[in-house]
Amino acid sequence: MALIVQKFGGTSVGTVERIENVAERIKKFRDHGDDIVVVVSAMSGETNRLVALAQSIDEKPNAREYDVLLSTGEQVTIALLSMALNKRGIPARSYTGMQVHILTDSAHNKARILDIEEKHMRNNLNEGKVIVVAGFQGVDEEGNITTLGRGGSDTTAVALAAALKADECQIYTDVDGVYTTDPRVVPEARRLEKITFEEMLEMASLGSKVLQIRAVEFAGKYNVPLRVLSSFDEPLFDQDGSSNGTLITYEEDEMEQALISGIAFNRDEAKLTILGVPDKPGVAHSILGPIGDSNVEIDMIIQNIGADGTTDFTFTVHRNDFEEAKDVLNKVAAELGAREVTGDDKIVKISLVGVGMRSHAGIASKMFKTLAEEGININMISTSEIKISVVVDEKYLELGVRTLHSAFGLEQKPV
Amino acid sequence: MALIVQKFGGTSVGTVERIENVAERIKKFRDHGDDIVVVVSAMSGETNRLVALAQSIDEKPNAREYDVLLSTGEQVTIALLSMALNKRGIPARSYTGMQVHILTDSAHNKARILDIEEKHMRNNLNEGKVIVVAGFQGVDEEGNITTLGRGGSDTTAVALAAALKADECQIYTDVDGVYTTDPRVVPEARRLEKITFEEMLEMASLGSKVLQIRAVEFAGKYNVPLRVLSSFDEPLFDQDGSSNGTLITYEEDEMEQALISGIAFNRDEAKLTILGVPDKPGVAHSILGPIGDSNVEIDMIIQNIGADGTTDFTFTVHRNDFEEAKDVLNKVAAELGAREVTGDDKIVKISLVGVGMRSHAGIASKMFKTLAEEGININMISTSEIKISVVVDEKYLELGVRTLHSAFGLEQKPV
Repeated sequence: MALIVQKFGGTSVGTVERIENVAERIKKFRDHGDDIVVVVSAMSGETNRLVALAQSIDEKPNAREYDVLLSTGEQVTIALLSMALNKRGIPARSYTGMQVHILTDSAHNKARILDIEEKHMRNNLNEGKVIVVAGFQGVDEEGNITTLGRGGSDTTAVALAAALKADECQIYTDVDGVYTTDPRVVPEARRLEKITFEEMLEMASLGSKVLQIRAVEFAGKYNVPLRVLSSFDEPLFDQDGSSNGTLITYEEDEMEQALISGIAFNRDEAKLTILGVPDKPGVAHSILGPIGDSNVEIDMIIQNIGADGTTDFTFTVHRNDFEEAKDVLNKVAAELGAREVTGDDKIVKISLVGVGMRSHAGIASKMFKTLAEEGININMISTSEIKISVVVDEKYLELGVRTLHSAFGLEQKPV
Repeated sequence: MALIVQKFGGTSVGTVERIENVAERIKKFRDHGDDIVVVVSAMSGETNRLVALAQSIDEKPNAREYDVLLSTGEQVTIALLSMALNKRGIPARSYTGMQVHILTDSAHNKARILDIEEKHMRNNLNEGKVIVVAGFQGVDEEGNITTLGRGGSDTTAVALAAALKADECQIYTDVDGVYTTDPRVVPEARRLEKITFEEMLEMASLGSKVLQIRAVEFAGKYNVPLRVLSSFDEPLFDQDGSSNGTLITYEEDEMEQALISGIAFNRDEAKLTILGVPDKPGVAHSILGPIGDSNVEIDMIIQNIGADGTTDFTFTVHRNDFEEAKDVLNKVAAELGAREVTGDDKIVKISLVGVGMRSHAGIASKMFKTLAEEGININMISTSEIKISVVVDEKYLELGVRTLHSAFGLEQKPV
């Protein structure tokens, strides 16, 4: 009795058998009376195969043609899933991004959705059809095929849900929801029944790679209830649904009881410090500008005032970019007359995330005290309204996360 | 200085290396000053892979979705070839059937082209771009993806050449032209420099599978000069081009000198005879109707008047359909009160083809005499304006073709 957009990723449609399973799942929702719009990714491995073909012709292939190539991956899946549904007597109709008219800008390989035509879909739904849409792709105003970049299928699903004002957007993955932290690190980690969009954004950007950030932003902007759930779980219809996966919504009263929702961490960090930079206006730009120009993304940034009218500047980058960023920074240091450049690529970031922080003091000091009691030295600290991040030596990652998880009682469902 | 449509089949684009070779060939034509529109098939093996995926879901997959699936094959090729051209500094732009707007009817899997929008292509050509079009596919009025059926890429090429009024449509294959007969049977077989559309139709439909029949019909209808040539030959620009491949055009004066253009044959024939059918109006339909209803295609049909007001009826079918057709015919025989059904699936058909027959008598008798001198018994005879076909025991195929090839002097270029 609801209109649901369901998105299945590459693993969930990775073989013909799995596509048949997806069709069976959709059948159950149909039998329950729901209207279904499905968004699918390319079968797992297919995008890599296509990328390899392109690379063997040109290391930097023409961007327009790259999108023409990659978009075939999802097109194969929509056709196969529609066949599997039709075989089951469920009328289904596939749409490429161009056919459903997901209008994007012309930024090939990383296009952004501008508009979605819902007319055709609405007609199909009224005729009782299941709509199967190719994720990750769209069309620009000139009729060129565009892609949203890797993982963009989540965004397609949310955008369709927003356009159709769907009751829920379900993202099926190989995990059964969002956890308080990675269960491989903390076996007591607990599945969250609900989390806010803001918290999810912090969790996602910090390395809990369940959902694409852009999709969460989109869902937040258009207030689309977003549910992360496992493609292995049985659908739950008779209950209120809250025990299936994790629902991402806006903050509600009941949520305020939890101070901390989860602990995210990121193993891919490296930090760089430039010491003794003459402190004058524009110094941050002089340092970070050249880093950005070399396409290295910067994560945390900290500036301290040093001695003698100089300043120290520390930032973190992805570990893969460490050497390149260091080279750039050495040149910058010479130009600015800085004293020294130091770096460390054996660090990790641990972050507490929770909207409860807004109204509760003392979270940060409890975090620091907990880590100190275990002898874990903190390298850097960065805070936002709903998160506190610390950088520590990578050898302390597991210990730090476990200790914090226990100290904040995350294994317990909040009452 | 010409506008040329070039079509490359699945083998010619079967690997990345071959796609690079095609790009090199196009570059030579561009350097020569020609405007090029390229039509490509799916990489060899790709269509079979997609068909297998579909079949593993449904033996009779939904026709609309089958087209969505299969059309991805050519889409991959157009993207890769356009990348290879752009890499060489040749501005190229790919088009799917939907994008170039090859409008077809809605007969999925075997659609027919209704119209082609040439505006965008003309603009691209004026901008100096090479246009790379996905063969075999189009779009119907409702925006559904359609395919023209296997081999339809030839038709796409001819249709584009007709729409753009191209100077020539070149079909690249793995043979260097159309031969007087199969060189594997007659080593002296000679490449024809020219052949008429009509002769080509007879040659093609009789088993010389160089070109799709529908493409030849289309080329004839719109008078598109069609050239079959090898993707391994070097392009010839300084000569008049006549020594490259085989040109298929309308009849010209110089052609009339050749009585016979070639000898086609078909190893896949089987014949069925129903004897002693009471001869009354409608008997042909009573016999052939049920055969057609069981989707068996009939080739030659011969009816003789028998004794006692009965008639004998013989027809040939594809060898694969022999058993099924025999079963149907046995039922029909019982219903009609016919005397007997006989059959033979060890027969072949040999055909002389040539527009010269129109104006020269005695070809048929020379054919029959030649075969008789070798002791080859003729089972059936069928004639049209420009062809004579005989059915013989399959053991005589090679002997018959060689003897006829020599008797009509086909190894010699006509003077």
